[in-house]
Amino acid sequence: VQVADTAFLKEIVGELHEADLGDLIEALDADERAPLIELTGADFDFSALNEVDDTVREELLEELEPETVAEGVRELDSDDAVELLEGVDEEVQDEILEKLPLSERVALERSLDYPENSAGRRMQTEFISVPQDWTVGQAIDYMRETPDLPERFYEIYAVDQWQRWQGAISLDALLRARRPVSLADLVDEDRRRVSVVDDQEEVARMFGKYNLVAAPVVDIDNRLVGVITIDDVVDVIEEEADEDLKALGGVTSDEELSDNFWTIAKGRFAWLLVNLATAFIASSVLGLFEDQLQQMVALAVLAPIVASQGGNAATQTMTVAVRALATRQLNPNNALRIVIREGLVGLINGLAFAVITGIAAYAWFKTPGLGIVIGLAMICNLIAGALGGILIPMVLERVKADPAVASGTFVTTVTDVVGFFAFLGIATLWFGLK
Amino acid sequence: VQVADTAFLKEIVGELHEADLGDLIEALDADERAPLIELTGADFDFSALNEVDDTVREELLEELEPETVAEGVRELDSDDAVELLEGVDEEVQDEILEKLPLSERVALERSLDYPENSAGRRMQTEFISVPQDWTVGQAIDYMRETPDLPERFYEIYAVDQWQRWQGAISLDALLRARRPVSLADLVDEDRRRVSVVDDQEEVARMFGKYNLVAAPVVDIDNRLVGVITIDDVVDVIEEEADEDLKALGGVTSDEELSDNFWTIAKGRFAWLLVNLATAFIASSVLGLFEDQLQQMVALAVLAPIVASQGGNAATQTMTVAVRALATRQLNPNNALRIVIREGLVGLINGLAFAVITGIAAYAWFKTPGLGIVIGLAMICNLIAGALGGILIPMVLERVKADPAVASGTFVTTVTDVVGFFAFLGIATLWFGLK
Repeated sequence: VQVADTAFLKEIVGELHEADLGDLIEALDADERAPLIELTGADFDFSALNEVDDTVREELLEELEPETVAEGVRELDSDDAVELLEGVDEEVQDEILEKLPLSERVALERSLDYPENSAGRRMQTEFISVPQDWTVGQAIDYMRETPDLPERFYEIYAVDQWQRWQGAISLDALLRARRPVSLADLVDEDRRRVSVVDDQEEVARMFGKYNLVAAPVVDIDNRLVGVITIDDVVDVIEEEADEDLKALGGVTSDEELSDNFWTIAKGRFAWLLVNLATAFIASSVLGLFEDQLQQMVALAVLAPIVASQGGNAATQTMTVAVRALATRQLNPNNALRIVIREGLVGLINGLAFAVITGIAAYAWFKTPGLGIVIGLAMICNLIAGALGGILIPMVLERVKADPAVASGTFVTTVTDVVGFFAFLGIATLWFGLK
Repeated sequence: VQVADTAFLKEIVGELHEADLGDLIEALDADERAPLIELTGADFDFSALNEVDDTVREELLEELEPETVAEGVRELDSDDAVELLEGVDEEVQDEILEKLPLSERVALERSLDYPENSAGRRMQTEFISVPQDWTVGQAIDYMRETPDLPERFYEIYAVDQWQRWQGAISLDALLRARRPVSLADLVDEDRRRVSVVDDQEEVARMFGKYNLVAAPVVDIDNRLVGVITIDDVVDVIEEEADEDLKALGGVTSDEELSDNFWTIAKGRFAWLLVNLATAFIASSVLGLFEDQLQQMVALAVLAPIVASQGGNAATQTMTVAVRALATRQLNPNNALRIVIREGLVGLINGLAFAVITGIAAYAWFKTPGLGIVIGLAMICNLIAGALGGILIPMVLERVKADPAVASGTFVTTVTDVVGFFAFLGIATLWFGLK
């Protein structure tokens, strides 16, 4: 990236799709990114920056001249502009906003005022609204004559004189109809719409359920203020799935592939610390039975098997429960049925693994009774795991905690403690240890 | 659901959105579902059945009269019809197809011939194609005069006389342009398109990356054969995220919330059996050190802590790796950097937890040296976990196995075995046990 190559760079940058341009930015060394953008200037499509990792984008926006960013932001649809600016420090944000013309600045500031993850943040404020008493011909002529239409649109909206929402007209309906037809005949008044304060997850679920491509966003007075399109929703769906998956694996959702090792190590430390504490709790159960372990060392060798099998069964149940809660498939109507079903699954697999583990343990240590002891413990722990795996996420959801984040720790603590306690307790009674 | 209520039922069923109708079907008792559909007949929108769980749909389609299903299928877009029929037994499928008019049957059979999960299965064969030498006016008139247009569409396609793909024209471009403008001026020839044999995951990634709403599907001769729309892609994205999440939790992707306990217990058994085998492998390492455990029972109490902490750190790394592989963010270009980074993360957190665990273990058992032994073991196991967590998914991906399904078992086996071996091995050397 050198000044001499400017013309060549401009050509490349101008031709690339924003997504590929984003890939290019990420592939460059960190100190070449800002010069590339400064050199290519107006040819650089700033929406490409929404395609790169958050950390890369934020660093870059702080490095660039506020004038350059402001120029780039002016070319964007409002939703892309908000996405670009919402992550950067307030100071840098203000510097950039100051360079914008007043009307654009006010519009962006209003969007940024909506709560994080709300529909207001995700919507674009460019949309086409027309009076309901127009005809198809008038609407088409209006679109042909207005130079400053949104970049892409899939439907237009009918509003009254106070900009209140009346209904949606999809473009294909408009194209099928003849010019003299009144818009009132084409309008879909039942079209699902979004409130500006709705959470983006709710919006994504609605899009998924009703197969929407765009949805109008209205304020509390039912005035049309924006539109959310499917491309933003696809990002939300992917983010949410990603968050759940990472949370279940004990990784915070803001960890990114471009982070350095130090940031990542710090981010993962907290979760590991919590788990270390629970591991000590589980081991303290083993500590209660120190004498028995010394008398019969086979118990020390086999105890982790009981705990691990319970933990794995519980993780299966928990995974299904967390996902079903996130998609609202698991709800108060079917909760009891699912809890009973998981309990039965735990019982059946408990019985199956009681037999298998019992035979294996006896074959290994040749101690009469050891197979029965481990079998009984296995049944207890798989039932405990099944019930813990379903009930803990449900309780967390009820108390408004994120089941995906916190369930794992609680659930494996339950199976470790119950597993160790059941196995060593039953062994103590069976073999008369003390 | 009784014959007497038919008129009332028809009204409800006719008014509901397909997604809500699907919810209604799922909420009904299994023996009331078929009668509801038979009674309401033509008022029942069969696309509702694509909104219910696979098992519910398949049972229902086998129960219904083939004539009823054939009538319903005729009303659907081809992609919905394929989705409805692809899960049912071949026999039932043939019975239903036989009741369809020849042309529709042939079209459906052709779609069902494409490989499962291919673009050919997901596409709809209803689309609008026009000659490139038409004007905007001709295209609009064509749409106004053709009664049998697709239900919804977002763009039309220009083709040559052999139906070969020439380019796409979005509806908004069409509405902005004046009637005499030639379509050739509006056509986007670079529009990304899909081959009929492409995998649906690839298609979904393309939609996500390039923010598409629809994509044309072409055959090997570049002839336009269908179109894939974003609503189908959203389903694919959700399915894929769901599969990865369930796979990491040890649950097969075909498990559904409506399954009974017996089906579920059987489905989860295999994974638990594999994990039991690995738990025995890990415990056999403990078995090697039976004498040492007996001499120093604190080792038996603490060993699970080393194994569990390694397992959790490895799961963090593995979760990130599996997700990054699935989204193609982790690729040969950055693989080495990420492996080194994860190794460093393992080292840093290994050192941190060596200190914490060492102090805690010494405080608990007051045995001099025990803290150093468990600390050293912790460092070994967190590094092993980090490297296992990143390398195992990468190797599985390379050998074309699904990293999400198989990684977990291998990774925790590594951390259990390394954890037990490092801790007891170091303890044996340090304390001179035998």
